[in-house]
Amino acid sequence: MLCVPLPHCSDYGRFLALLVSALLVGFVSVIFSLVWVFHYREGLSWDGSAREFNWHPVLVITGFVFIQGIAIIVYRLPWTWKCSKLLMKFIHAGLNTIAMILAIVSMVAVFEYHNARNIPNMYSLHSWIGLTAVIFYSLQLFLGFAVFLLPFAPVPLRAALLPIHVYSGLTIFATVIATALMGITEKLIFSLKSPAYSASPPEATFVNCLGLLLVIFGALILWMASRPHWKRPPEENAKVLLTEERSLN
Amino acid sequence: MLCVPLPHCSDYGRFLALLVSALLVGFVSVIFSLVWVFHYREGLSWDGSAREFNWHPVLVITGFVFIQGIAIIVYRLPWTWKCSKLLMKFIHAGLNTIAMILAIVSMVAVFEYHNARNIPNMYSLHSWIGLTAVIFYSLQLFLGFAVFLLPFAPVPLRAALLPIHVYSGLTIFATVIATALMGITEKLIFSLKSPAYSASPPEATFVNCLGLLLVIFGALILWMASRPHWKRPPEENAKVLLTEERSLN
Repeated sequence: MLCVPLPHCSDYGRFLALLVSALLVGFVSVIFSLVWVFHYREGLSWDGSAREFNWHPVLVITGFVFIQGIAIIVYRLPWTWKCSKLLMKFIHAGLNTIAMILAIVSMVAVFEYHNARNIPNMYSLHSWIGLTAVIFYSLQLFLGFAVFLLPFAPVPLRAALLPIHVYSGLTIFATVIATALMGITEKLIFSLKSPAYSASPPEATFVNCLGLLLVIFGALILWMASRPHWKRPPEENAKVLLTEERSLN
Repeated sequence: MLCVPLPHCSDYGRFLALLVSALLVGFVSVIFSLVWVFHYREGLSWDGSAREFNWHPVLVITGFVFIQGIAIIVYRLPWTWKCSKLLMKFIHAGLNTIAMILAIVSMVAVFEYHNARNIPNMYSLHSWIGLTAVIFYSLQLFLGFAVFLLPFAPVPLRAALLPIHVYSGLTIFATVIATALMGITEKLIFSLKSPAYSASPPEATFVNCLGLLLVIFGALILWMASRPHWKRPPEENAKVLLTEERSLN
């Protein structure tokens, strides 16, 4: 009974196709970030060198883009509608916590690299918006935990805050991708000297493609997250679906 | 009868406050772009010099960000709900056409500047995503015109395409803002030499603030455009509201 959770099988197929595309584009983005730092740059280590800086794009793309993207659409997976809402909330919060930790470690890598080389911190628009995004993301996670996971907030408060939580989540996610694109721009200008970025060496073309992949990943996640008919059905409907499916099996 | 078009006066007040904030932030962004090019840079002209390049940020921020933003929320203005839907479609399409023309002229300015200085075109991620955004925006405008303005498309087709039109519009808008942030990053790195961008001269701080304003403007527009209760009511309801108001006046 593969199609029970969604009203139409064709709709389920469309959702699956988009999900597979998003996972593929997100996964390829992570691979691209690794190829970038290992093939075109100095690789990874934690010693204040450029290799420490390289953790920044890898962790941002893995955690702050890919894992955050998955966390956003986790409620939309039809086969999870049989699971309790509480379990799904834990998975949503857990994935976002991993993403936040990776984002913070990725920032530490840049600060340590800057300090080791006496490069000023927090001067660029990338750093301003990036730090703002991390602060709002942490706040969103903390408030989400306090209001939606802990059992103290009354139902009307949860209902009033949910649209704000959803909007903030999607806006922060879009801002994170915009910040990643700024970061790619900065890094390519600073690190490509001979040949320069403007001469389009292979690294420039490769990393520009990584930027395009991030935009496509963001667009797919935002489409899946904003289709009302792909929403997890309210608790009662989910129970009905579950009972129906059990009686059919 | 100021509050007739919206169910609650407090909600109307909230909408007005957000609208005024968005207009203010958008307007200040345009002023900031002018201060940037006139106070910190060489001003404006059309002669292949850096002054021609300067049209690029001014026209993008005025047209592709500010005017596009207004075009997005034009259906949400409660006092326009008395106007015919067709008139509002013309205003929406008209504003978007102006934005598209300004975006295209802003690109011509960069190409002419690059060609005059033998700087390669289309090498940066900013240029790749920017050109893609202009192409999708033109396509969106053309399809919107063919499907929603011309009287040939059947109602089911319009209904099926409307969510895609809305999603594409908002995604292109967000992408344009991300591209503007990349452009600001590029321009500050390239043009600030002594002192460099990393030394945070006044121009760097000022233009970083412009970047923040663009993010705030985008966030305000996306909030207003995505609240379902601020949508223009269906044609029949609007007629009822109009009749009620007339009978009250």
